[in-house]
Amino acid sequence: MQDSTRLSTPASVHHSLVAGVCLCAALLAGGAHAWEGLVEKQVFEMDEYTTRGGETIAPLTVGWEAYGTLNEARDNAILITHFFSGTSQAAGRYAEDGPVGYWDSIIGPGKPLNTDEYYIIASDTLVNLNAHDPNVITTGPASIRPETGEPWGMDFPVVTIGDFVDVQKALLESQGIEQLHAVMGASMGAQQAYEWASSYPDRVERLIPVIGAGETDPWLLATLGAWAAPIRVDANWNDGDYYAGEPPMDGLREALKLVTLNANHWQWANETFDRSWADEDADPTRDLHARYAIEQTLDDIAAARAKLADANHLLYLVRANQAFTAGHGESLEAGLTDIEAPTLILYSEDDLVFVPPSVRRTADLIAADGTPVELIPLAGNRGHLDGVVSIDQAGEALSDFLSK
Amino acid sequence: MQDSTRLSTPASVHHSLVAGVCLCAALLAGGAHAWEGLVEKQVFEMDEYTTRGGETIAPLTVGWEAYGTLNEARDNAILITHFFSGTSQAAGRYAEDGPVGYWDSIIGPGKPLNTDEYYIIASDTLVNLNAHDPNVITTGPASIRPETGEPWGMDFPVVTIGDFVDVQKALLESQGIEQLHAVMGASMGAQQAYEWASSYPDRVERLIPVIGAGETDPWLLATLGAWAAPIRVDANWNDGDYYAGEPPMDGLREALKLVTLNANHWQWANETFDRSWADEDADPTRDLHARYAIEQTLDDIAAARAKLADANHLLYLVRANQAFTAGHGESLEAGLTDIEAPTLILYSEDDLVFVPPSVRRTADLIAADGTPVELIPLAGNRGHLDGVVSIDQAGEALSDFLSK
Repeated sequence: MQDSTRLSTPASVHHSLVAGVCLCAALLAGGAHAWEGLVEKQVFEMDEYTTRGGETIAPLTVGWEAYGTLNEARDNAILITHFFSGTSQAAGRYAEDGPVGYWDSIIGPGKPLNTDEYYIIASDTLVNLNAHDPNVITTGPASIRPETGEPWGMDFPVVTIGDFVDVQKALLESQGIEQLHAVMGASMGAQQAYEWASSYPDRVERLIPVIGAGETDPWLLATLGAWAAPIRVDANWNDGDYYAGEPPMDGLREALKLVTLNANHWQWANETFDRSWADEDADPTRDLHARYAIEQTLDDIAAARAKLADANHLLYLVRANQAFTAGHGESLEAGLTDIEAPTLILYSEDDLVFVPPSVRRTADLIAADGTPVELIPLAGNRGHLDGVVSIDQAGEALSDFLSK
Repeated sequence: MQDSTRLSTPASVHHSLVAGVCLCAALLAGGAHAWEGLVEKQVFEMDEYTTRGGETIAPLTVGWEAYGTLNEARDNAILITHFFSGTSQAAGRYAEDGPVGYWDSIIGPGKPLNTDEYYIIASDTLVNLNAHDPNVITTGPASIRPETGEPWGMDFPVVTIGDFVDVQKALLESQGIEQLHAVMGASMGAQQAYEWASSYPDRVERLIPVIGAGETDPWLLATLGAWAAPIRVDANWNDGDYYAGEPPMDGLREALKLVTLNANHWQWANETFDRSWADEDADPTRDLHARYAIEQTLDDIAAARAKLADANHLLYLVRANQAFTAGHGESLEAGLTDIEAPTLILYSEDDLVFVPPSVRRTADLIAADGTPVELIPLAGNRGHLDGVVSIDQAGEALSDFLSK
């Protein structure tokens, strides 16, 4: 399927068509493979990639990073697959004063995903949301298409979770990795993990889906569709053709606000906020434009995220998430039966994105032919997001599962 | 507070500044007060109304209807207060072939809210969402302001649930009703019911809030804010000044889609829909514009609703709901302690709008000084909406409570 793959050197970063000119200094810092807390973002490039739908993307570039050292047998790799608004940065930091990756609490020397033992690798997906983040390297509608010298825009082919997985497979093969000790991901990352274990059962020794199900259920189809809607309402979206003009920032901000709100739980909202006004001089009962503090906070988060994000990428990501059914598409039952890897599913009983019955159904279908499946609930007041921000509580379960 | 009130005759409907020209034939049908299944929509007009915030609305017109007969003592009235997207039509139909009101299963001769016994009255609120529904009569931003001959637009004052209640109080007084056998409402209707019992404890003998709490919690503040957002993104909204041009229909549809989705529960979505495509010839994995059936259904519902609705009215309703704390504003505790009426609260454990802890806290605060409170959960797969569509299961509890 992949005609040509190669592992780019950091120098090729300069020529990335995707990441643009503003690259993190850490990218160029060099250093050993062994991870010491500072992370090097690297580039993987394919001259050409054919999607599962039969469309060609040429070239294709994604960013990746690793923590720990690949052993000589090349059999100690754990792949981390990221969530909807995530990036490859699962752990560590790109600069001394930079933020750490989202699962830093469980990835590192002596941690449950022990970098003294495992080679932990993560990549940016295709159509990564944060196309304008200098630390993100992806290929999608915002990328320049060499034939035209213009961004792909809506001519970019629809891509699926299976495509995310196949690009990761090419990345791993470029490093001589044929076998994964484990694949682990949260939310959209769980979708990728299920897809890995279903499409390539011989290559996955352990499966760890977090806050995710083997299929996107109708509730989530609708929720994802609602995330896309504000972008389409924004006149600046212009049917996706906005790269020469003003991007649809209002719509993008509102889309990202819905993502934040839906990924949380009402317990979090009601335990974190009160009915305070955003501005003590602007009374919402007198001024229709005045807001409450929780609205202001969600708006501020959305505005910060929107600066790094691309609206078309969000639409393509929504579709990749909607389209997901694990495996090669005959049926969910067939796709999940193909999974052979012992499976540890971490989930939240309060998840409003991947709701518990859909997660439990996934577990039952994987277990139906005797594959061992363990289902562990995560505590917290964040619902879905507890799979990201409260993952440390699963540390012992993860250590045990990885060493079995 | 109300300088002048009068009960309009059906003839005055023709001059309503609010409902426009297209009025239901049933409005003009005349007939006895006793309710025989066909409902007459009537008009209540005030020359001037001063809001709780001290602003003047002149004139003010709202629609109302009643089922059953007011007795001589004028003490058999039950007021029904409507939900966010609702109207006064709680029961019956305006025409032989028209749809019935939302609580028709419990309101009528021999039904729990027995029209042989009670005079059941309901009115359209101020800033009613369905400003362009020929059966709705309301006053809000879409209404013509006599001083200017133009719609109020964003010059309309912010109104609150307290204002909805005070207009209803004037309507009841115009019929000589000083005492309510009960007040009952769902969701935003529950807010009005709490407000009635807190602001006018001497006038409310029984309180029946359904799927609602005594205060809008931070989760709901944010959810309501998200409903408003797509309208503001739509360029046609034009800061609320669109009455001479194209209204923001795209934003309004997306706002109403969120209302439908949030008012339901994931059980409903996953038990009602599957992963079918909206169009069997348009594969969502090949075409970014293709949709899933559940998306199409939600879009169709939203489009139908949007034709009758006004975008500014939605923004004002959002604010009225956000601003709600029962009582005169010192604190929720004080507001709920003011309630003296025995209270029956119907709610859903799966409500994602008024979440169960906020409902239970409301019940506890009302009960704190000895006021009797009964809390009954509703079953169903709709969550919040079970308070509307599944109300019949509470029939016996309602009969018993009303006759105590």
